[in-house]
Amino acid sequence: MNISVFGSGMVGRTLSAKLVERRHNVVLGTRDVDALLARTEAGMGGRLPPFAEWHRDHSSVQLAPFAVAAESADLIFNATAGEATLDVLKSAGEENLDGKILIDVSNPLDHSSGFPPTLSVCNTESLAEQIQATFSGARVVKTLNTVTAAVMVEPDAVEGGDHHIFVSGNDHEAKDRVVELLKSEFGWRNVIDLGDIKTARGPEMYLPLWLQLMGNLGTPMFNIKVAH
Amino acid sequence: MNISVFGSGMVGRTLSAKLVERRHNVVLGTRDVDALLARTEAGMGGRLPPFAEWHRDHSSVQLAPFAVAAESADLIFNATAGEATLDVLKSAGEENLDGKILIDVSNPLDHSSGFPPTLSVCNTESLAEQIQATFSGARVVKTLNTVTAAVMVEPDAVEGGDHHIFVSGNDHEAKDRVVELLKSEFGWRNVIDLGDIKTARGPEMYLPLWLQLMGNLGTPMFNIKVAH
Repeated sequence: MNISVFGSGMVGRTLSAKLVERRHNVVLGTRDVDALLARTEAGMGGRLPPFAEWHRDHSSVQLAPFAVAAESADLIFNATAGEATLDVLKSAGEENLDGKILIDVSNPLDHSSGFPPTLSVCNTESLAEQIQATFSGARVVKTLNTVTAAVMVEPDAVEGGDHHIFVSGNDHEAKDRVVELLKSEFGWRNVIDLGDIKTARGPEMYLPLWLQLMGNLGTPMFNIKVAH
Repeated sequence: MNISVFGSGMVGRTLSAKLVERRHNVVLGTRDVDALLARTEAGMGGRLPPFAEWHRDHSSVQLAPFAVAAESADLIFNATAGEATLDVLKSAGEENLDGKILIDVSNPLDHSSGFPPTLSVCNTESLAEQIQATFSGARVVKTLNTVTAAVMVEPDAVEGGDHHIFVSGNDHEAKDRVVELLKSEFGWRNVIDLGDIKTARGPEMYLPLWLQLMGNLGTPMFNIKVAH
């Protein structure tokens, strides 16, 4: 499949690397390819190497500006920072998103007041709803935002995969295809369909608890299992 | 122990019944005892019988106005509706809460716009923080708000108790005593201390996801396990 991944951070890189490994044609979308490759600083306190260094080891991931990446894609992952997401999608061009499955894995975290971040949208709306409302032709499916990048693509790394991931979206066929992709490409076994895109408020508002648990456990390698 | 439980709904009744069964001296606090006993309507779509009917089967639970119930208590559970909590605690009298462990199990749900309810406070504050800020002498511990009443007092009813409950609070000794009570009186085995009272934002903001899961599962008899 032709898959584009928006975002060059830890999540975008992890998704791209896994999807290439699974033999998809992957384009990583970014604002300015040359600027991205020219960056020399490491991110996340040194844990995220400069992009060019990562790309040397993952050269089969193609690079393109957002609009080009969107145009060529059958399916798009949004792995940009939540605060930038709407601007990024606008720069990708609404016409390039029309009819496409848009998997939103982002979180609307506002880091401006330090740690822990608050949410820039919540309670009466979610980022996923804002995306769907702004790009009405896109088939938005919210998922994977409740786990760290490494768990997104390898759920078995946590307690043998005995935990849950959620999907929300208005388009049933799009959701079915995303669930199939989560299972076949990433190995998810327990997927809960919460309902329409409005239900994305739940997984997005879970983030403050996730951040606290990460602090307490001392690792992001965890997830929740719905016991019932 | 002398324990008072504020609130006469499903949660207040369930906690009171269990604590009496565990041989505590339990006072259920309410605004107006006579008015409560005079009510004839059932609540929660018929699933919550009129209070007097419940009380005939649980007559060892004493009844008293909030202030009287607070004065006699060593430890207080707040099981009132989140929207009413601050008013209820004011009517109980700040002096009657001073130095007392106040276990807040409530959720700040705003039902005014139908289902699903939104939160009346979240993101940059929590109800638990408001309670602690308003009643600075009380030793507030947030817990149990992430499960339905029946699971609060019998975690083993869901997957043999293999799931987690959270505690948040500023007073370490109060938290230790609450954790001990959760274990010895209710049978909780997996308790995660999230940190100070500010961390109550996490479990409170988890409620929208809880409400969606309840709808999807068709039962409130579930909880989350932190798999790591």
